[in-house]
Amino acid sequence: MQPVADTIPMPHLEKTIVAEGHLIDSGLMRQIFDVIISDGGRFEMLKFDIGRTNDEYTKAALRVTCDDPVVMNTILLKLSSLGCQIDIDRKVILKPAPSDGVVPPDFYSTTNYATEVRLDGHWVSVEQIRMDGVIVVDQAGRTAPVVKKLRSVLKGDQIVCGLTGVRVLPDFVERDRVDFGFMSGEVSTERKVRLAVDRVADIIRDKDKRVVCVSGPVAVHTGGSTDLAKLIEHGYIHALLAGNALAVHDIEANLYGTSLGIDLSTGSPVEMGHRNHLRAINEVRRAGSIRELVAEGTLTSGVMHAVIEFDIPFCLAGSLRDDGPLPETVVDMNEAQDIYAQMLNGADVVLMLSTMLHSIAVGNMLPARVLTVCVDINPAVVTKLKDRGSHQTIGIVTDVGLFLHLLANQLLRA
Amino acid sequence: MQPVADTIPMPHLEKTIVAEGHLIDSGLMRQIFDVIISDGGRFEMLKFDIGRTNDEYTKAALRVTCDDPVVMNTILLKLSSLGCQIDIDRKVILKPAPSDGVVPPDFYSTTNYATEVRLDGHWVSVEQIRMDGVIVVDQAGRTAPVVKKLRSVLKGDQIVCGLTGVRVLPDFVERDRVDFGFMSGEVSTERKVRLAVDRVADIIRDKDKRVVCVSGPVAVHTGGSTDLAKLIEHGYIHALLAGNALAVHDIEANLYGTSLGIDLSTGSPVEMGHRNHLRAINEVRRAGSIRELVAEGTLTSGVMHAVIEFDIPFCLAGSLRDDGPLPETVVDMNEAQDIYAQMLNGADVVLMLSTMLHSIAVGNMLPARVLTVCVDINPAVVTKLKDRGSHQTIGIVTDVGLFLHLLANQLLRA
Amino acid sequence: MQPVADTIPMPHLEKTIVAEGHLIDSGLMRQIFDVIISDGGRFEMLKFDIGRTNDEYTKAALRVTCDDPVVMNTILLKLSSLGCQIDIDRKVILKPAPSDGVVPPDFYSTTNYATEVRLDGHWVSVEQIRMDGVIVVDQAGRTAPVVKKLRSVLKGDQIVCGLTGVRVLPDFVERDRVDFGFMSGEVSTERKVRLAVDRVADIIRDKDKRVVCVSGPVAVHTGGSTDLAKLIEHGYIHALLAGNALAVHDIEANLYGTSLGIDLSTGSPVEMGHRNHLRAINEVRRAGSIRELVAEGTLTSGVMHAVIEFDIPFCLAGSLRDDGPLPETVVDMNEAQDIYAQMLNGADVVLMLSTMLHSIAVGNMLPARVLTVCVDINPAVVTKLKDRGSHQTIGIVTDVGLFLHLLANQLLRA
Amino acid sequence: MQPVADTIPMPHLEKTIVAEGHLIDSGLMRQIFDVIISDGGRFEMLKFDIGRTNDEYTKAALRVTCDDPVVMNTILLKLSSLGCQIDIDRKVILKPAPSDGVVPPDFYSTTNYATEVRLDGHWVSVEQIRMDGVIVVDQAGRTAPVVKKLRSVLKGDQIVCGLTGVRVLPDFVERDRVDFGFMSGEVSTERKVRLAVDRVADIIRDKDKRVVCVSGPVAVHTGGSTDLAKLIEHGYIHALLAGNALAVHDIEANLYGTSLGIDLSTGSPVEMGHRNHLRAINEVRRAGSIRELVAEGTLTSGVMHAVIEFDIPFCLAGSLRDDGPLPETVVDMNEAQDIYAQMLNGADVVLMLSTMLHSIAVGNMLPARVLTVCVDINPAVVTKLKDRGSHQTIGIVTDVGLFLHLLANQLLRA
Repeated sequence: MQPVADTIPMPHLEKTIVAEGHLIDSGLMRQIFDVIISDGGRFEMLKFDIGRTNDEYTKAALRVTCDDPVVMNTILLKLSSLGCQIDIDRKVILKPAPSDGVVPPDFYSTTNYATEVRLDGHWVSVEQIRMDGVIVVDQAGRTAPVVKKLRSVLKGDQIVCGLTGVRVLPDFVERDRVDFGFMSGEVSTERKVRLAVDRVADIIRDKDKRVVCVSGPVAVHTGGSTDLAKLIEHGYIHALLAGNALAVHDIEANLYGTSLGIDLSTGSPVEMGHRNHLRAINEVRRAGSIRELVAEGTLTSGVMHAVIEFDIPFCLAGSLRDDGPLPETVVDMNEAQDIYAQMLNGADVVLMLSTMLHSIAVGNMLPARVLTVCVDINPAVVTKLKDRGSHQTIGIVTDVGLFLHLLANQLLRA
Repeated sequence: MQPVADTIPMPHLEKTIVAEGHLIDSGLMRQIFDVIISDGGRFEMLKFDIGRTNDEYTKAALRVTCDDPVVMNTILLKLSSLGCQIDIDRKVILKPAPSDGVVPPDFYSTTNYATEVRLDGHWVSVEQIRMDGVIVVDQAGRTAPVVKKLRSVLKGDQIVCGLTGVRVLPDFVERDRVDFGFMSGEVSTERKVRLAVDRVADIIRDKDKRVVCVSGPVAVHTGGSTDLAKLIEHGYIHALLAGNALAVHDIEANLYGTSLGIDLSTGSPVEMGHRNHLRAINEVRRAGSIRELVAEGTLTSGVMHAVIEFDIPFCLAGSLRDDGPLPETVVDMNEAQDIYAQMLNGADVVLMLSTMLHSIAVGNMLPARVLTVCVDINPAVVTKLKDRGSHQTIGIVTDVGLFLHLLANQLLRA
Repeated sequence: MQPVADTIPMPHLEKTIVAEGHLIDSGLMRQIFDVIISDGGRFEMLKFDIGRTNDEYTKAALRVTCDDPVVMNTILLKLSSLGCQIDIDRKVILKPAPSDGVVPPDFYSTTNYATEVRLDGHWVSVEQIRMDGVIVVDQAGRTAPVVKKLRSVLKGDQIVCGLTGVRVLPDFVERDRVDFGFMSGEVSTERKVRLAVDRVADIIRDKDKRVVCVSGPVAVHTGGSTDLAKLIEHGYIHALLAGNALAVHDIEANLYGTSLGIDLSTGSPVEMGHRNHLRAINEVRRAGSIRELVAEGTLTSGVMHAVIEFDIPFCLAGSLRDDGPLPETVVDMNEAQDIYAQMLNGADVVLMLSTMLHSIAVGNMLPARVLTVCVDINPAVVTKLKDRGSHQTIGIVTDVGLFLHLLANQLLRA
Repeated sequence: MQPVADTIPMPHLEKTIVAEGHLIDSGLMRQIFDVIISDGGRFEMLKFDIGRTNDEYTKAALRVTCDDPVVMNTILLKLSSLGCQIDIDRKVILKPAPSDGVVPPDFYSTTNYATEVRLDGHWVSVEQIRMDGVIVVDQAGRTAPVVKKLRSVLKGDQIVCGLTGVRVLPDFVERDRVDFGFMSGEVSTERKVRLAVDRVADIIRDKDKRVVCVSGPVAVHTGGSTDLAKLIEHGYIHALLAGNALAVHDIEANLYGTSLGIDLSTGSPVEMGHRNHLRAINEVRRAGSIRELVAEGTLTSGVMHAVIEFDIPFCLAGSLRDDGPLPETVVDMNEAQDIYAQMLNGADVVLMLSTMLHSIAVGNMLPARVLTVCVDINPAVVTKLKDRGSHQTIGIVTDVGLFLHLLANQLLRA
């Protein structure tokens, strides 16, 4: 199944490799040993220097041996993809895309970790890192190698194939004990939520990080939209990604006082209240857009009002279950993915609030280094999001309305 | 908030109403009493004839009185919308849509129950019943009143407004005790699943009902796609609605033996297996479409192969989290909703297999009378789907792979 | 299977019955109709007077007829157990218990609703109402009929058998709309929790109701024990029912700052912290009891300190998974059930905090009229508790630590 | 907080340690590095020999250095408890228990891994290994060191204190790739359950392993008791641990055809069926015991019948929520724990079927080496059980009724 080995030109039976990084905490050392042994190689540890501080890397040198040259090459390629430096100058294998949106069968599929390819004897960084893409190289060298989604590939694009000449720089779990324990611990409903809120507040308080918020409509149903609007108005959120439903129910709440027909001030169903979200959609359509509803003075509060008044970029992505949709909603999923990806560009922190669909979509677009804060009352959702790729996830199992209430209190009190 | 009462031309202080149907089992009698009392009216029971058999209806006649004519009219309108017959010939109120996709503010919002409007002294059935739509009437009478989604309304369409002249014919819970207990009972993880499977098998065995299957990719991950393919091949499924992911993983499973990189014959992760779903997408793109992949002989088994070989209509709807997508995937959500609605037309039974997003979308499009079978391992999903509208739901909390295995065994054994 | 009909002495083919209460809101009218029709009888509605206010009852009179005298009797007995008054003076059937802890096979099994038995031509209230017990009658009439658990029955006790001469007075759902909607609505994670907290605060603020708290250790893990202690110290809680684990982790938290080894001030695991709960147990054992640990000045804060200092009755029930247990823990389950039942005597409100085992146990012991407030982050637990018997349940799906924090804030701020 | 360092007699500033085992796969090497670095030490890798086969161990030698002798000792103690061999002959520290059930404050708290203590210059195995106990040493050497629960400690027992002279032999994750992936993977609802069933069948097919089954009543509710009875009758289960409820509902099912009042052949509630579990209890009480109910020929099928007829040891442990309880139910939790522990003695495989309470209790009693198979429809329960201690857990998220059906089919077909 692996069309890898046959792409390697010449055999090695013994090779010295070097690995560098937070090899222990990250589990990378274990993976290196694993690859060698499970594929049938042997190794001897030549050097092992442990970093003294959080900033220092550990450096290891190993002599790898194997009797079968084909296996040896497979091992070396895998070690290379784990970030090991191998003293071989073997450049990346490029093959042209046979047509638009199609790549050669042995294409290299990206992870969400920082990645480099070997070009002209140098390791060159790949840009626009995200999961499940392919790497396109400009052979003329005018632009950097870049990750593209399959559908964006053009006929003739030079696609990186096989594992040769590709290396991944794993995202290292930091060694700071307090953070480590808190952040990477198991997802649990049995933790003190206020501590997690304090920590998130600390991270975003200085506004020196780009914070993108991805939110489901539950933020409105649970009474959190007032607090989310406050966070936006005070400059803590730099882009809002959501679905049609968040905007619909936010506008419903601010025009009619209900969310999905439930009165937000009493918690009781309002008679004929199920009609209110359609009334909200109709009002927006009448005005022409949410922006115009704000401009004409009809919509005067809430999350959508806040992003429009404070000029925060937002994208409402459509879904199959939408009513309406609102005029601003992007109904073409390819286009919505592109806008999402663009708004996530440069994000340092992403708050994922009670929306599995949008959170998974966003997770696929993010480099592993971005810190994500995932809040959901269902522990299975938090676990699922933590399991997808990055170690840089704070999972908080709680009611999103209370989470936003506490977070706004923390950040906005005098 | 209710712009209803002011649309009523003249007061009544006493009125005799008649209600007919399975008034007791359906809870309708209670709702009738409720409306009268809670709004401040009084009533006297004039007649109460109980149906003797499952097929006979109960018939009740009540004299309703109220001192306030405005309140009285509100009560009568609500009773009318509950299906009560009121001896007033008051025709439906129609107002023109002010522009495309916009309706008058007091528009009537549809339920998923059979509905009639009063036109020219007759009750006329509304077609294309679904939740959260508006009713458009052709005043010339050439076509029947029809439910449209907001976005499909055209400027000048005559829109039903207020509650006057609209009545809903509730879907009655059947009185057959065994079925009733089984079908409408609480959602529970503590039931014998095989009984539920037997019942579903009984319902679809004779192939005299139109069965639409809505499925998530978990059907593939849990090893159920072989059985689902068999059900399709033997004619038990008449349309397939799914997302891009079902097709991707079904093709991945049939080309490479994995689903999301997990080997389906061993349950273990395959090395570099996360790449396989992208390989599957690339293969389809290379061939041009799933249909062409089947035609060229590359894809020879599985769910997608079955629907194509046996010419079963299908729709793959896109979502924000899709990879690819596949060429057949409909990425415009408005278009996807329209195709889904069309394929659901005439459905008698809908199997909803482990996909909350698509199931909710489908639930919104269905008349209440359609029997839905909702299978999910998460009881909260089953509860949520049962709570949306119809009493005609069989909720089964189990593994979808085992469900399909048992169902295929029941239906296909000699 | 039903040994009921043969206990009835003489046939009736037509009978007038009277029912009184909130018949509509409670669904009782529907149950009455249901019983008559499903068993094969007929009825004619003679009178139906609706209560005008929340305090007034509805009164209905029906003529019931049936061709089969055995069936007729069964119907009448069932109607009687639904609270209908039947103008027959048929006394309850009593049979002696054949030995200690054993009752006649056709014993009447109690519900948690108020119940009366027909003795000497009068309806007499049964005391100590709880689910799944039997009714013991003192034929000499010196003491009131009382519910006993099977194991408490003594040889020769006169046990109520069959359905004759027993009637149940259903607990009526109140007609107040706001409360009704809020309290009896579906369990949902999509509601504003602060509204529910406000409502609970309103209910217990005046301290005129006996409030019993049943709590799991999650109250400690989630940082809620300080707030729970405050509620106890300010007199809002009148008895505490818990397991060994609540006390262990509460004492661990107050002696060592951890709960299950997690530092409550940082949320991180403490090295060797898993040992702390055993240290806490050992400390209590050294002192002799929790009470002595408080007396000697070692335990100075927390929930257990609060109940001891403020002399609030408490019971720690053992379970199979306990470490220790603590000296105060009652390890005999029969004894623990008896103490729980005694402490629940006279309770008006029971707070059930994140403990399914203890909450179900307590639910079995309570009359239906007691208001229960069930807080759990798992919606399935809340649903399960709501489904057991009483309509008087407020279900709140949230983090119990945040719930206690908000509740204490509501009640204790100036 | 850790009263450990002061128990160490003399400083070391440099020490060579040796570790042996599946150091890589088990993550042990990483823990060793972690301890040294996080506590402020340094190390040099002297030797690192990788095992060639699954049976061979890896052997590592490190020179550890540290400037602070107190810290150095802490490091060495921790490394010792990780199983590292340190060339120091420092015997375990023993202190007498001050009274019955009380130990010195610096007691050593056991894990569920194989453990040795240093006595007279030798490492001696500790018997009766379980979590959260203390180690009692017979200084006369007549009996082996043994783990006792706190409450079983007698005044004067010599209790191991601090970390000196204790070492833990970690349970090694096996290197067999297929098993490893399957067994230690994340808990997921998105897997093919039949593969997991096949694997469990393979493990217990030869009857050469002692298999203990711990089951909740859901096995009966979901229709699995017939299959569980078959497994018992055919010799696949060697002890049954359960609560009162399993036996009650099993007997209810076999006497009356219902489980919690639900007819097991139709899935519908039976009228007055809630009474059936009390009838079952009453029947057992009448006969005197379950055993006598079988002897007199009343109970002729089901799980309890099977264990009695085939003389399989069983224990029914009581709980606070029990009805009855049955005569065989052990209501004293200390006694029930002791019987459970005794029946688990020598177990190779434990099947945990849908019972969180009993499974956690059992998990606490088991050495880590015992393979546990945890089946529950709630993924959170499976995750929680997997997180407690052992890597030797197969977690299966599915309906327990279907699991037992498939398992019996696998094992019992010709």
